[in-house]
Amino acid sequence: MPYRATVDDFQFLFSHVVGFDRVTQTERFADADAEMIDAILGEAGRLSEEVIAPLNRVGDQHPARLENGVVRTSPGFAEGYKAIADGGWVGISADPAHGGMGLPMTVTTAVNDMMAAGCLAMQLNPLMCQGQIEALEHHASDELKALYLPKLISGEWCGTMNLTEPQAGSDVGALRTKAEPLGDGSFAITGQKIYITWADNDFSGNICHLVLARLPGAPEGTKGISLFMVPKFIPDADGNPGARNDLRVVSLEHKLGLHASPTAVMEYEGAKGWLVGPEGGGMAAMFTMMNNARLGVGVQGIGIAEAATQAALAYATERKQGRSLIDGGTGTILDHADVRRMLMTMRADTFAARAIALACAVAIDMSTATGSDDWSARAALLTPIAKAFGTETGIRVSELGVQVHGGMGFIEETGAAQFSRDVRVTAIYEGTNGIQAMDLVGRKMMDGGDAIFALLDEIETELEEARNTLPGLGEPVWEACETLRETTETLLGSALNDRFAGAVPYLMGFARVLGGYYHLKAALAAPESPRAQLAKFYITRLLPEHLGHLAHARAGADDLYAVDAEGLAA
Amino acid sequence: MPYRATVDDFQFLFSHVVGFDRVTQTERFADADAEMIDAILGEAGRLSEEVIAPLNRVGDQHPARLENGVVRTSPGFAEGYKAIADGGWVGISADPAHGGMGLPMTVTTAVNDMMAAGCLAMQLNPLMCQGQIEALEHHASDELKALYLPKLISGEWCGTMNLTEPQAGSDVGALRTKAEPLGDGSFAITGQKIYITWADNDFSGNICHLVLARLPGAPEGTKGISLFMVPKFIPDADGNPGARNDLRVVSLEHKLGLHASPTAVMEYEGAKGWLVGPEGGGMAAMFTMMNNARLGVGVQGIGIAEAATQAALAYATERKQGRSLIDGGTGTILDHADVRRMLMTMRADTFAARAIALACAVAIDMSTATGSDDWSARAALLTPIAKAFGTETGIRVSELGVQVHGGMGFIEETGAAQFSRDVRVTAIYEGTNGIQAMDLVGRKMMDGGDAIFALLDEIETELEEARNTLPGLGEPVWEACETLRETTETLLGSALNDRFAGAVPYLMGFARVLGGYYHLKAALAAPESPRAQLAKFYITRLLPEHLGHLAHARAGADDLYAVDAEGLAA
Repeated sequence: MPYRATVDDFQFLFSHVVGFDRVTQTERFADADAEMIDAILGEAGRLSEEVIAPLNRVGDQHPARLENGVVRTSPGFAEGYKAIADGGWVGISADPAHGGMGLPMTVTTAVNDMMAAGCLAMQLNPLMCQGQIEALEHHASDELKALYLPKLISGEWCGTMNLTEPQAGSDVGALRTKAEPLGDGSFAITGQKIYITWADNDFSGNICHLVLARLPGAPEGTKGISLFMVPKFIPDADGNPGARNDLRVVSLEHKLGLHASPTAVMEYEGAKGWLVGPEGGGMAAMFTMMNNARLGVGVQGIGIAEAATQAALAYATERKQGRSLIDGGTGTILDHADVRRMLMTMRADTFAARAIALACAVAIDMSTATGSDDWSARAALLTPIAKAFGTETGIRVSELGVQVHGGMGFIEETGAAQFSRDVRVTAIYEGTNGIQAMDLVGRKMMDGGDAIFALLDEIETELEEARNTLPGLGEPVWEACETLRETTETLLGSALNDRFAGAVPYLMGFARVLGGYYHLKAALAAPESPRAQLAKFYITRLLPEHLGHLAHARAGADDLYAVDAEGLAA
Repeated sequence: MPYRATVDDFQFLFSHVVGFDRVTQTERFADADAEMIDAILGEAGRLSEEVIAPLNRVGDQHPARLENGVVRTSPGFAEGYKAIADGGWVGISADPAHGGMGLPMTVTTAVNDMMAAGCLAMQLNPLMCQGQIEALEHHASDELKALYLPKLISGEWCGTMNLTEPQAGSDVGALRTKAEPLGDGSFAITGQKIYITWADNDFSGNICHLVLARLPGAPEGTKGISLFMVPKFIPDADGNPGARNDLRVVSLEHKLGLHASPTAVMEYEGAKGWLVGPEGGGMAAMFTMMNNARLGVGVQGIGIAEAATQAALAYATERKQGRSLIDGGTGTILDHADVRRMLMTMRADTFAARAIALACAVAIDMSTATGSDDWSARAALLTPIAKAFGTETGIRVSELGVQVHGGMGFIEETGAAQFSRDVRVTAIYEGTNGIQAMDLVGRKMMDGGDAIFALLDEIETELEEARNTLPGLGEPVWEACETLRETTETLLGSALNDRFAGAVPYLMGFARVLGGYYHLKAALAAPESPRAQLAKFYITRLLPEHLGHLAHARAGADDLYAVDAEGLAA
């Protein structure tokens, strides 16, 4: 079942659901007119369908491997990467001053969605590069920018992020990798990093590692962390790859999924590196790198949800099985109510997650274009929701995709199981979904709930009309907003660990409510279309889940600590 | 992390939650006194810990394979199977007249739970054999019984079920395999069967295939199906394996999980078979075989949930990461509220699913022992819930187990991902969970809801006291029962396809309510223990999910058909 790019869905969401016109009305993004956006989406869609999607099964069956210290990538991945780079897609949102396209994050988000749907293991590479480009644009010296950005943006070189160490995962502050000044403005980097995505390949001219490390005498914890650019080949005077640096791939992990994406243990043995940003500024730089990458990872989940839905629908429309209970049935399993329930759940949740991600991207663009604190707060609020709900949706929808396939879903050759395996890590990397939820109820509530209430006010104001015109849909969404508001107030009045205890259910409930709102907007914009039916389905059947989530969210932490490890073991 | 058998949990559930004393008070099961049960559970626990659990990772890494038409099993599996057979565990519930132990299904259920937790791929083999034994006990001629049962019960021979064909999965009635009378009382069986679990091995003296096929001139659909015993080696006059039959393993599937359990395409090329039960009685015999196997598969999910919980808890109590927000923390991730939320969800759901499965087994035993229609109806009602909720719990809990492991969860060497892969098929085989739910709202409501209301009446009567003594727990469970009652009434008044449209959410909501009831019973029996805390956790945080499920269940089918395949694709 070939992947079909969802250009129409993005165009509809841009125009009718997430208010992309606000972005194109800014001076910064004035060039991104409808014609240009259509051309960009169409071209990215074609690339995803024709070049990237065909790599997906091949990569799963022929994993990247380590040979004599060098990564050999899966068949076709070199050509796939070249096509992405040649199309300018690595630098799609990057600064035109260094060769980027400078397009809005909203457009990048749509493009990433399609490429992830095509082949997540492949798309992960440019996603990592985009994060590095952004970190360099914001924090690197002009010299480093001039040396690295053009080659990263053109795709000639690739980029990685090196954060995690065996004892320092979610707790980045525990890292021990050392950076010692060499006196010439460079540093000797020594230490081991794990889970390094696309740490090496056999198709790019250089691999640029951004590595978090500690300078001598640096304070403990996150304040003592600095960021360094540590290239595999040290650029010579002309900026071309020169001497081999003292770093190596120790091993590749044997993973549940993403077999074509090499995940490495990296050893830095006095490797030469250059400071990016100020001493001790590593965490700030890392957050720049991670922030939009979080949205990018959420979108990976959505891309897989889309691909899994298309595959399941294709299977269901061909698979004949069982007696139909409806008139004029097709004789396929699509006649069965439970199969339809699964497919519509897949479609409805994918739409909800995509709308949230694009709304987040619009907020990022508006913040970039206007410098408005309100937009910045909106982007910061939606980022953890887009990441966690996007990836949960990827997991849940691909699970349903396996189920729609019945026994065939458990057989690897259908590819249904691969979606489920590949997407699983998206709930873990770039900050686990638990960390995202803690960010939502912790840092994102430090404004006393202002950003949340501003969003809820905006939604409820918009809903006022719908409560009259489409009461069956408008009223339940409005009530759900109110329940979310009350739960938010409860959490604001609670100690931090009580909030943390309900953080994930709160985030899931929040996403359910936002999904209801965006579905309703779709129904209002296209009242006679399948979109309106899908909105009804979502609001009637899936939105009520927020009741369970938000009840859970309000439960506080006490009962979680009433049982000790021994009690849990019993 | 070695698996630790949960003998205490079974003893508690037997005594305080599922009323196993009623079973042992019957004449039929009077021998199964407390001392004997303790000995049985203790011995099965030891076997699961020491012999079966060590096979789990090995089997995943060294799959069963087909060599020159013969299956070579994973290292250690021959010895593992021999230990199971030698312990008499294959025939644990079988008729003592043929060498079985004749123990109650409740005890078998506990034993299967522990063995599945140890190694699902291994345990699947005796589970298949148990289904075959039961079918033969109920339907085979005395001659066939005498020939096959002793060897199946002793474990000398293994048994398989052959139902599915490429065009006949959930719709068994579409099968085409032919059976032609040979005039000597035997039949020539010709056709292809797929998804045949443990279709062959290199450790048993014979493999006995129960095959569904059609006699010449048989009516279409399920009425024309008969059941045949088709052994790999035709027993000679002394009952020993003789001539090789005309059947062969064509290929093994490359599956998401259960790598050590060979899943085959089987070709029957005029193989000699003998009728089991009357002509056209294949479906009835198959239902005997499948009915208790459904409970057995639910229990597979529970076993994996247990194993995944133990592994995650062991990881969490060792993994140091992040700053603790609590006094007297251990410095491990167990200090974090969200990790505790995940672990307690795993524990609480495993308990709920296990209680439902054991309550179902008690009903089966009471039906067997007393012949009571009420107990029979109770068993029939609980079977699809035990199957679907047990397997859903296995999937959800093992997913959480991966998440607790963080990045390590995505790396195969921890084994967390294997639980998740292995258990996935349990929601599909032995009737998909969608089929289970359709059984619940279809066949199991043909009594006008009598069996459901009898159960709810019983629960609510028991809850009356708890509503006063433990109102914080008793009241929400009672209210949830009422919502379930109302939803049941709504479904009873709806057309069949409207019920089907909400079948899975209804089943999930039903299970949530039952789980609340059993947790409450545990809290009442052990008010000062961690079990009471777990009950509070479940009732406060997980029980509210029934609101979403039951709202979904009441939505009817119309909206599911308002969008056609084209609309779903858009």
